[in-house]
Amino acid sequence: MAQGDIILGPNQYGKAECRLVRVTRDTPVHRIEDLNVTTQLRGDFTDCHVVGDNSHVVATDTQKNTVYAYAREHGIGSPEQFLMTLGRHFVDDFEQVTGGRWESQLYAWDRIGVDGRPHDHAFVREGREVRTTLVQKDGDETWVLAGFTDCTVLKSTGSEFHGFPRDRYTTLVETDDRILATSVTAWWRYTSADLGDWNERYAAIRDLMLETFASLHSLALQQTIFAMGRAVLERFPEVAEVKLSCPNKHHFAVDLTPFGLDNPNEVFLAADRPYGLIQATVQREGAPEAPQAWATVPGFC
Amino acid sequence: MAQGDIILGPNQYGKAECRLVRVTRDTPVHRIEDLNVTTQLRGDFTDCHVVGDNSHVVATDTQKNTVYAYAREHGIGSPEQFLMTLGRHFVDDFEQVTGGRWESQLYAWDRIGVDGRPHDHAFVREGREVRTTLVQKDGDETWVLAGFTDCTVLKSTGSEFHGFPRDRYTTLVETDDRILATSVTAWWRYTSADLGDWNERYAAIRDLMLETFASLHSLALQQTIFAMGRAVLERFPEVAEVKLSCPNKHHFAVDLTPFGLDNPNEVFLAADRPYGLIQATVQREGAPEAPQAWATVPGFC
Amino acid sequence: MAQGDIILGPNQYGKAECRLVRVTRDTPVHRIEDLNVTTQLRGDFTDCHVVGDNSHVVATDTQKNTVYAYAREHGIGSPEQFLMTLGRHFVDDFEQVTGGRWESQLYAWDRIGVDGRPHDHAFVREGREVRTTLVQKDGDETWVLAGFTDCTVLKSTGSEFHGFPRDRYTTLVETDDRILATSVTAWWRYTSADLGDWNERYAAIRDLMLETFASLHSLALQQTIFAMGRAVLERFPEVAEVKLSCPNKHHFAVDLTPFGLDNPNEVFLAADRPYGLIQATVQREGAPEAPQAWATVPGFC
Amino acid sequence: MAQGDIILGPNQYGKAECRLVRVTRDTPVHRIEDLNVTTQLRGDFTDCHVVGDNSHVVATDTQKNTVYAYAREHGIGSPEQFLMTLGRHFVDDFEQVTGGRWESQLYAWDRIGVDGRPHDHAFVREGREVRTTLVQKDGDETWVLAGFTDCTVLKSTGSEFHGFPRDRYTTLVETDDRILATSVTAWWRYTSADLGDWNERYAAIRDLMLETFASLHSLALQQTIFAMGRAVLERFPEVAEVKLSCPNKHHFAVDLTPFGLDNPNEVFLAADRPYGLIQATVQREGAPEAPQAWATVPGFC
Repeated sequence: MAQGDIILGPNQYGKAECRLVRVTRDTPVHRIEDLNVTTQLRGDFTDCHVVGDNSHVVATDTQKNTVYAYAREHGIGSPEQFLMTLGRHFVDDFEQVTGGRWESQLYAWDRIGVDGRPHDHAFVREGREVRTTLVQKDGDETWVLAGFTDCTVLKSTGSEFHGFPRDRYTTLVETDDRILATSVTAWWRYTSADLGDWNERYAAIRDLMLETFASLHSLALQQTIFAMGRAVLERFPEVAEVKLSCPNKHHFAVDLTPFGLDNPNEVFLAADRPYGLIQATVQREGAPEAPQAWATVPGFC
Repeated sequence: MAQGDIILGPNQYGKAECRLVRVTRDTPVHRIEDLNVTTQLRGDFTDCHVVGDNSHVVATDTQKNTVYAYAREHGIGSPEQFLMTLGRHFVDDFEQVTGGRWESQLYAWDRIGVDGRPHDHAFVREGREVRTTLVQKDGDETWVLAGFTDCTVLKSTGSEFHGFPRDRYTTLVETDDRILATSVTAWWRYTSADLGDWNERYAAIRDLMLETFASLHSLALQQTIFAMGRAVLERFPEVAEVKLSCPNKHHFAVDLTPFGLDNPNEVFLAADRPYGLIQATVQREGAPEAPQAWATVPGFC
Repeated sequence: MAQGDIILGPNQYGKAECRLVRVTRDTPVHRIEDLNVTTQLRGDFTDCHVVGDNSHVVATDTQKNTVYAYAREHGIGSPEQFLMTLGRHFVDDFEQVTGGRWESQLYAWDRIGVDGRPHDHAFVREGREVRTTLVQKDGDETWVLAGFTDCTVLKSTGSEFHGFPRDRYTTLVETDDRILATSVTAWWRYTSADLGDWNERYAAIRDLMLETFASLHSLALQQTIFAMGRAVLERFPEVAEVKLSCPNKHHFAVDLTPFGLDNPNEVFLAADRPYGLIQATVQREGAPEAPQAWATVPGFC
Repeated sequence: MAQGDIILGPNQYGKAECRLVRVTRDTPVHRIEDLNVTTQLRGDFTDCHVVGDNSHVVATDTQKNTVYAYAREHGIGSPEQFLMTLGRHFVDDFEQVTGGRWESQLYAWDRIGVDGRPHDHAFVREGREVRTTLVQKDGDETWVLAGFTDCTVLKSTGSEFHGFPRDRYTTLVETDDRILATSVTAWWRYTSADLGDWNERYAAIRDLMLETFASLHSLALQQTIFAMGRAVLERFPEVAEVKLSCPNKHHFAVDLTPFGLDNPNEVFLAADRPYGLIQATVQREGAPEAPQAWATVPGFC
């Protein structure tokens, strides 16, 4: 096989995990925005890969500098807005850059309460979930995904699991009352990059998902997941589709009969591994798909 | 050197990280307690170490079973109470067990809000801090330590650092306005094992520490730490001493002058490593010390 | 918008991270195989998602049982072989299963040396890299990917970086001698599922990649990555394409001039974040692509 | 209680996790030393804690600078030697510093093989264990501890566990053939700070521990641990005592009888949590103890 046959395929590069904290201090009541930003460029980088010619390579160090400089020049406001501003710069200002990928995690902070009042400039990290945002550009197209991860939820009842097929390898007992627990990773795709109100919309979608998790009497984690996605699509026409990846964090009711005790679903062992893993897409029938928007989202089908 | 010279010194063994979730479902409004329990025994275990004779060795599997059975028989109530009940059982019911160490992490959960009201049996993990408890027994003595870890706090102003000595290796610039951020690990020792109200006291002490962090105009992280411990000792006579271990999570104001921008303490890079590490004890003068209580607390001086 | 419009899109489910250790003890010289297996099914699961009907849902617990039973019935041999055997079972034996995804991590062990000879049944975990395998099936089609992750390599010289464009945000200094370090995540796709000799081929490809990393005088991490992939494609016609994801683990030469010291590339600070992130595909021109094979590989473009 | 009663107790502070890589390039065959260094000072720092007076506080940034400058000025050679040199500087050159704590983790690298020969300047991280070193000083006294962590070992036979007491909570079945697996954390204290040959001695002690793990027919993990420590004390008179902390990484033989299969100790589930945790000291009878040397070693009794 001739060496000339071997070519560069899809590629991207940039600076990952720029930890950026921005303080807005225009009044004594400070606000903080805490982000982990990854910037990656796509375009004409063949010569760098094949012969080590860097004349097209916007250094990852330069990309990092741009993240911090843009936080000063343009502010953040919302991760969606900030990442789109970054992306536009790289695509518009460098001929060899035809697109890219800009991602962030956002960590939320509460104000510390002092004498019952929220403090002006002291904060405690909230830790309930991490908000995620992914902007991708290809020429004139822009895809905006939003979501969250590491959001652990649990129902202590209102969950059943039965009616599944039994084969030679099936030992699981059917149940009409179990703990249902998961750590939600959710992503949704917006139909437009010009929505505005990104922060409010994010919070409303997240809250709706948690409410749906709580309210649905569940016959399977699959059903819960689908309902969470459907609820979002029903209420938010600006959401094109939702993808959820949810480990089934098994809580096993401990068999206490050897000790002469019953266990009416009160004492559980929370297991680590293995765990169920349920991943599903909820979408609108006939709507255009956007495989490029999802290509680099970790682990999704 | 004769082999007979070599002997067994201090030792302990048990089952670590029993993940225990207990649901109290006596009314439709469920409550959950979520613990990670470690139980370790001390006593006469020389024959096991030296010749493999297990006749004294309460199996770690038995210790685990006991954790789950006791959660059913005695409930939890508070980690302090639960660990003391466990400890009493092992020390009282096994002749060869003269003491031990029982530790837990507790993960807090909020109720999910649905239509503005907290749900009866659906929860979301809070994630702000992990509550830690350590009970140790040696014969009739019992030491109770309580604390928390992974509580990340930040002040966006109200922190200075200057006046430190300068030697050949000093390059740090003095500052009268910096971000002060840390992830607090705190432990305090109670003067008694019979206090009761463990949960309320824990919350009050934690809140007081955060309030003190927020309120003190800081000239050094050491000063902040000492003030946090002192505040607890001043208000809670039942606390004998406080130990704090706090990384200085550096937030560097990014130098934007190469880009023609100023940076009036608005844009920061949150660094990972290295980090400052400040560890201090705050105690009452002349009070009896309890080195045994602290011997196995990770990393403290 | 009518509710009927909202439908289930692509989905998969199963049991993740079944930690499986198999000991072959047909002679006193034992062998161990240590795997972390994830099994996920695809097919007709709409009723489960939409109405909670589990009659098609092969329980994830059943999938787990099958992993362990198959390790006894069929042995492992190689992860590629084992995952394909698992996959064939699920697709062939359940009508509703039309495909799926079977993935593993493999942890290598060395024998402990005693008196200069490898011990029969005592092992130490090697820890140099984790071998990864991904088998996917869709009807009659099978895709086999292999790779490794967490393989940290470093060149203390033989790496340059210069000639990159300079804009307003560029401050990076050009260098003709730097440390090049990365933690390689590599995946390659085999052209066939019937190759055999999976273990030997894996080792040969991995070694060739490391040799190429070592040998190439590097003008950019991109160039090194491309060369690693090209070397594999040149020597192994049974490899269709290679994807690499490599963080640039920056090692900054510390500026010691404030202390009156030079630093001729001897003392480095190994930084954590941010880091460069270079991801590239190396493929054969005109060869058929296989987007389905890559759809769920985390983070790749 | 008067506020004056509240005082500063034991404390220490410094810079943690300085990631230091040193390349020795005096010949074309480079050598690398890869350390994670933590430096902490003890002494007269009351005014800093109580009133925020930093005039005694050698900045943690200065401590970090010193780590890197000393790597250039003095080289490393061995972590024991390097940490002692650092410690001597801080104690001798600052009046207010009366002692301190200097710790490191060392990551080992192999040379990459190219054409069967080790490469001059290309390395792959070994990953088998992390070498740990802890030097503490108090005035003229110096304690040197050495050890390792994250060394995972496994015996596929040659391990029994039976004869343990049975009470109401005991369900564990006795066994005369099980997998014994652990991740060894070992620390030992040297009798002197002037031994030299630190690297060779470290490797010999580690190897002896692994050999002992392999060779002993084990009746309990406790017995294995004690034997590992005793072997070191028997062969190395310069070792005063050994402390080991070993999780019992349970490998459960999977019950395959529901599937019509036997399991003659061939197929195991490697469990995560809970795990046994065995911690023991092996020492010389009548020898002087050194509680200060161990006070801050995480988790040891």
